Amino acid sequence: MKPKFIHISENIVERIKAGELQPGDQIPSENELIRDYQVSNTTARKSLLDLESNGWVKRIKGKGTYVLNRTPDHHLVRTLGSIYATRRGFNEGLIAEGFQPRNLVIEKTTLPDGISSEIGGKHFIIEGPVMKIHLLRYADEEIVKDELRYVSLTLCPNINRVPAEVSYFHVYENTYGLKIEKVKQTFGVEILTPDSAENNFKLEKATAVFVLDSAVVCVKQKVVEIERSYYRGDKYKFAVIANPEYDDKKQ
Amino acid sequence: MKPKFIHISENIVERIKAGELQPGDQIPSENELIRDYQVSNTTARKSLLDLESNGWVKRIKGKGTYVLNRTPDHHLVRTLGSIYATRRGFNEGLIAEGFQPRNLVIEKTTLPDGISSEIGGKHFIIEGPVMKIHLLRYADEEIVKDELRYVSLTLCPNINRVPAEVSYFHVYENTYGLKIEKVKQTFGVEILTPDSAENNFKLEKATAVFVLDSAVVCVKQKVVEIERSYYRGDKYKFAVIANPEYDDKKQ
Repeated sequence: MKPKFIHISENIVERIKAGELQPGDQIPSENELIRDYQVSNTTARKSLLDLESNGWVKRIKGKGTYVLNRTPDHHLVRTLGSIYATRRGFNEGLIAEGFQPRNLVIEKTTLPDGISSEIGGKHFIIEGPVMKIHLLRYADEEIVKDELRYVSLTLCPNINRVPAEVSYFHVYENTYGLKIEKVKQTFGVEILTPDSAENNFKLEKATAVFVLDSAVVCVKQKVVEIERSYYRGDKYKFAVIANPEYDDKKQ
Repeated sequence: MKPKFIHISENIVERIKAGELQPGDQIPSENELIRDYQVSNTTARKSLLDLESNGWVKRIKGKGTYVLNRTPDHHLVRTLGSIYATRRGFNEGLIAEGFQPRNLVIEKTTLPDGISSEIGGKHFIIEGPVMKIHLLRYADEEIVKDELRYVSLTLCPNINRVPAEVSYFHVYENTYGLKIEKVKQTFGVEILTPDSAENNFKLEKATAVFVLDSAVVCVKQKVVEIERSYYRGDKYKFAVIANPEYDDKKQ
């Protein structure tokens, strides 16, 4: 016979798999498990620990236990094609998943000349001056994203004084009153080796990484931001949902 | 001074980069170049050859010369988050880009039991019987996609008699009258080595590949198709466009 605590945690995993409990949802507390399953507090605590050590949930002190937005192979999932999702800052996303985010700015300069990027066969250009910001994004103590952004200082004067922790999207919209029309992104893949020049991750073996190129465009086709970032492929997955309404809107 | 034919092809590349000429658009014919630039037919022909050999366009016999849907590093670009794009069959996409598509079916069987797949933390299930079809997709003489699909034989009886060349999406909608509600996809990356079991590409060196998991869902949340495919990362890029209207629709 299975131990009782395994029975409880399997039951909760079932509910997560069925989609009844969604990423970000709170799962029953220790006291609720005691009441619902008629078990001791030791058993309740053991099943919560079991769920956490298997990567299904994350306990946040004084707050509760939350379903993680991860696949069973422990990748972080990010949804593409939604500006709402893009608007949520990188750090906010990690915090919701129970990670401790941290940024390390390795370069922040003003370029007098413009910058351009080719995304999906189209050129996006920002005229100078441009703020260049290069930062490493940590989840707990691991670097998960290597991020390089160029922001128009014509559209966003003094944005170089804004700390890197906040969502730039909020700043574009709220501080500078820019209306974001679209975000165009392409994803490629590359293999980074420990000795490649782009390896800012301190990788110790060859690892597949996503290479993201993106442009944030506001009204009158003005480009606010150009980004070129690397996401560790052993940490991330990207999700896309296609539905007919989206297409209808575009036509 | 630059040769005249270089001047012409640079001019056309500029128009492609500016987005004035879009992928799939026809560029000026030899006769139009002769007329517009006042050059000989040798010069006109040389600039078309130059554009083609640099991967910007593809000449299709008896049809004309078309802008390719590729980045300058010669990746094929596929747009995500659009059912219209998904509906266009794999082969139709390649033909439009000037490739010769070919499929090699390596397995086609009926599974009496169901199949399930975990996509973005959610389980998608097709009850048996299920058609399993495993095929290799060629562009010219190279394998670019290794495709494994499972299709519900309850929703699509006898679909095993449909040839692999056609767009299954058309068949779901037109032959079986299914209304597709959404397509949910996640992308991961992996490194395939020449000796890995999943290397059906005949790769000769370690290569990053996209791993696509997807589920096609029709009305009443019924799952029509589950797919698990690999795309060569040195051949493909994926594009996503986020815009606020999409989010508004979703709410």
